[in-house]
Formats: sequence, structure tokens, C-alpha cells
Amino acid sequence: MADTLETNETHRLIASDKVEGTKVYNPQGEKLGTVANVMIDKRSGKSEYAVLEFGGLFGLGSDHYPLPWDMLTYDTDQGGYVVDVAKEQLVDAPRYGTDNVPEYTDDYGRGVYGYYGVTYPFI
Amino acid sequence: MADTLETNETHRLIASDKVEGTKVYNPQGEKLGTVANVMIDKRSGKSEYAVLEFGGLFGLGSDHYPLPWDMLTYDTDQGGYVVDVAKEQLVDAPRYGTDNVPEYTDDYGRGVYGYYGVTYPFI
Repeated sequence: MADTLETNETHRLIASDKVEGTKVYNPQGEKLGTVANVMIDKRSGKSEYAVLEFGGLFGLGSDHYPLPWDMLTYDTDQGGYVVDVAKEQLVDAPRYGTDNVPEYTDDYGRGVYGYYGVTYPFI
Repeated sequence: MADTLETNETHRLIASDKVEGTKVYNPQGEKLGTVANVMIDKRSGKSEYAVLEFGGLFGLGSDHYPLPWDMLTYDTDQGGYVVDVAKEQLVDAPRYGTDNVPEYTDDYGRGVYGYYGVTYPFI
């Protein structure tokens, strides 16, 4: 995130490199981690996941938790995203290491969306 | 783009940080620049623009050209995106400097989409 909120966030749109690195909190104000990246459908352009990253050292060995995009809302007060997930809920959540990115198949997607109780709306 | 194509690109989806930095060519094989970032609708998650960047020195003073997302197709042979735009067409195209990002209002969007002859499908 080299750019500031002022230059890279607009009313309705947000820049992908502004999303990346943004902090993620739960409604209790606990920091869950940061957004590593966004998984986008190449054809439709739909962002299907924001990938939550935490743990590790200097970005090495961190865990990546794909979250359904619609679960995230931006909180201007906290300057980050809020997602209604308890820390305990992440213990068994789908995740992967930096060097172990899964294929985001529809089966995988249904598992992720299902884990958070969100209907998988694709295909 | 710290990640490789193998680890960060999957069948149907692509990671935002994989898109960023990817080269952009026209159908004649001329390199137009690289993707600076993707502009995403916060609510719907729809990627509306890939922002083409070129010129400048070490990322300073470069020009940014928002392109309708649907104009880009990925060419595995060239390892980059192909967009049907002649270099000459960029001379008068909507663009901005790094420190001069416009508000992506619907008026602005209609101007950009219109410039490339693409129907503005939002709102």
C-alpha cells in the first residue's frame, strides 16, 4: 500500500493495492490480520474472496484464510475491514501457507463459503 | 508480484497481486505497459477497471490509464494481458498521474468506457 486512502480510494470503488495490507478486525475490535490479496474471477471480474493473512514473521510462514468477499465491511473509524468472525472460529477454518496455495475450485469454494455459513453463489 | 503464476493463479480465479505488475500488450504484440492495480466496486466486488501504467522512472511520474476490465484477455503465450488498443489511441485517452488520481465517479466512468467504445454497465 504505497498509496494513501485519499489518492486511491474513491466513493464507490477501491484500488486492489489499497485493499492489500488493510487490517481486518472482528466486531469486538480484535485484529485478526491483514488482507493479503483478493481472488478475482478472470472473466466476470467478480472479487470472490479477500484472503486474510496473519502469523508468520516478516510475511514468511503466515497463514492465509480465504474469506467470502461479502463478509467484509469497511470501518472508517478503525481504518480497516470488519468481519464477523470470532478468533476461535479461525482455528478450524480453511487456510493455507504461502507456498501451498490451493486450487480455488468450486468444491474448494463451497467448502470455504459453507464454513462461514454463506451461500456459494458462483456456478 | 512476489508469487509465481503457479502458486497464485488458479483455473477460474486470479489473485489481485498477480494481476498487478502483469505486462499489457496490444494484438500487434507491442508492450503498452503494466497493470498498476484493479479498481473494485466495494459493495459488489466487481472489478471495473484494470489500470494500465507506463512511462516514468522507477514508478515515479508514470501515467495511469484506466481500462474497462472486460477489454483485457490473458495470453498465456505472451504471459501478459492483451488489449485491443493501438498506441496512438492512448494519446488522447483518459489518464492521470500517480499523485493525481481522479474520483472514479459514474461520470468519469462513462467517459472512460465511452472512449473505448464500451457500454458503461454500472448504475
